[in-house]
Amino acid sequence: MDISTDFIRQLAHVAAAETLPRFRSQGTVDNKLAGGFDPVTEADQEAERVIRALINARFPDHGILGEEHGSENLSSRYVWIIDPIDGTRAFISGVPVWGTLVGLTVDGDAVAGLMSQPFTGELYYANASGSHYEGPGGPRKLATRKTTQLSEAILFTTTPSLFQGDMRSNYDDLERQVRLARYGTDCYAFAMLAAGNIDIVTDPGLKPYDIVALIPIIEKAGGVITTFDGRPAEQGGDILAAATPELHAAAMTSLRG
Amino acid sequence: MDISTDFIRQLAHVAAAETLPRFRSQGTVDNKLAGGFDPVTEADQEAERVIRALINARFPDHGILGEEHGSENLSSRYVWIIDPIDGTRAFISGVPVWGTLVGLTVDGDAVAGLMSQPFTGELYYANASGSHYEGPGGPRKLATRKTTQLSEAILFTTTPSLFQGDMRSNYDDLERQVRLARYGTDCYAFAMLAAGNIDIVTDPGLKPYDIVALIPIIEKAGGVITTFDGRPAEQGGDILAAATPELHAAAMTSLRG
Repeated sequence: MDISTDFIRQLAHVAAAETLPRFRSQGTVDNKLAGGFDPVTEADQEAERVIRALINARFPDHGILGEEHGSENLSSRYVWIIDPIDGTRAFISGVPVWGTLVGLTVDGDAVAGLMSQPFTGELYYANASGSHYEGPGGPRKLATRKTTQLSEAILFTTTPSLFQGDMRSNYDDLERQVRLARYGTDCYAFAMLAAGNIDIVTDPGLKPYDIVALIPIIEKAGGVITTFDGRPAEQGGDILAAATPELHAAAMTSLRG
Repeated sequence: MDISTDFIRQLAHVAAAETLPRFRSQGTVDNKLAGGFDPVTEADQEAERVIRALINARFPDHGILGEEHGSENLSSRYVWIIDPIDGTRAFISGVPVWGTLVGLTVDGDAVAGLMSQPFTGELYYANASGSHYEGPGGPRKLATRKTTQLSEAILFTTTPSLFQGDMRSNYDDLERQVRLARYGTDCYAFAMLAAGNIDIVTDPGLKPYDIVALIPIIEKAGGVITTFDGRPAEQGGDILAAATPELHAAAMTSLRG
């Protein structure tokens, strides 16, 4: 089972038609969780709707798990995992580091995926042909950097405040060892890792729809992505991605304390 | 003294020709400060060079203060302040939230300025005609939001770790009161404030070249920007920008402890 590049572009295209006109328009945000701040926009809901429609039309027997509209037919060998807007906080703040994530699992393994950022016109995707970029500057194959030492590494996380207790002191220990740490980029950071711009991304407590689409993009670019205890990332959890196996091992040692 | 929109576009254009081809190209980073991490790229140096050349050709009597190439003729009533790449850490990480900043002061007051992000094709600028945006979605006037309550506000800062000692606890106090806090966007956050996407930006220890260009963009869009003790922001320092005078006062109360 593979997904054609054309179908990947179609998925990005239909989602962009729902997200982009609503980006930086005010007044479409409501709260998903009373008491907390987990914004969901009309864009989120509509983008997932059109992505599901496209998948259902092309692959009527496949399962779908989406952030907004729940699951269907998860007993299929083929299950699509959708986060129509990963980085909703960036979206409502006007900052174009959110993305539309669509991944495909076969028997639970992520085999293809896309991250689309329609404001910048960037598409990061992976299928059987490898891991690729399309957008400003022209198309190219993605490849991670060859960084093996923490002291040479650029580290990203959404925010350190997501690490609690011992996890936080372990994270702080990792941050002290790297060359540079940056915050606040959600899925965009994982794309930058696959593209060879940065070296490590870690985020705790991810859901499958936050990460499945990004797994093949990173792995087929040469990177390593697992949970903190080295299990496959497909089920989400505390996730660590790195440019090389050596760097992944070094970062995991810090994050496990 | 005003600066035409055409000249603002020219400044953005010549800078982009130096920065954009080097964005996401590896190997051009060296360290400005031994021991610390203050990257400066070839792009930074070349962009300032072409901006200076354009200003010198058009306004030979004006002064110029730049991050990379120092100062000239600062006794002029008219002084240009240049940061060719604000957000060099974002630049080297491949994340398009850096910007080229050029501001003009008359007798020390910022009267015109631009923030250009060439990868996204965005230009935020202010001159006598007001505060404006050009880029994806089409041109429009900039206007801040009408937010007056901290509990409704979206707050940005580059990173909380720049706040030390009492300043840090004051910052943490502010962060607890807002609706949402995000990190890591440098000049881009100030543009989002002017554009009505977010409500508060604070960064301690800024240099004049980090902020002068942004002052008229924010003020002419309806926002308020000063130091933490309410002085003009033109000399840099600990800077607070907010969407409304009421919100600025509320945030300043927290930041002053």
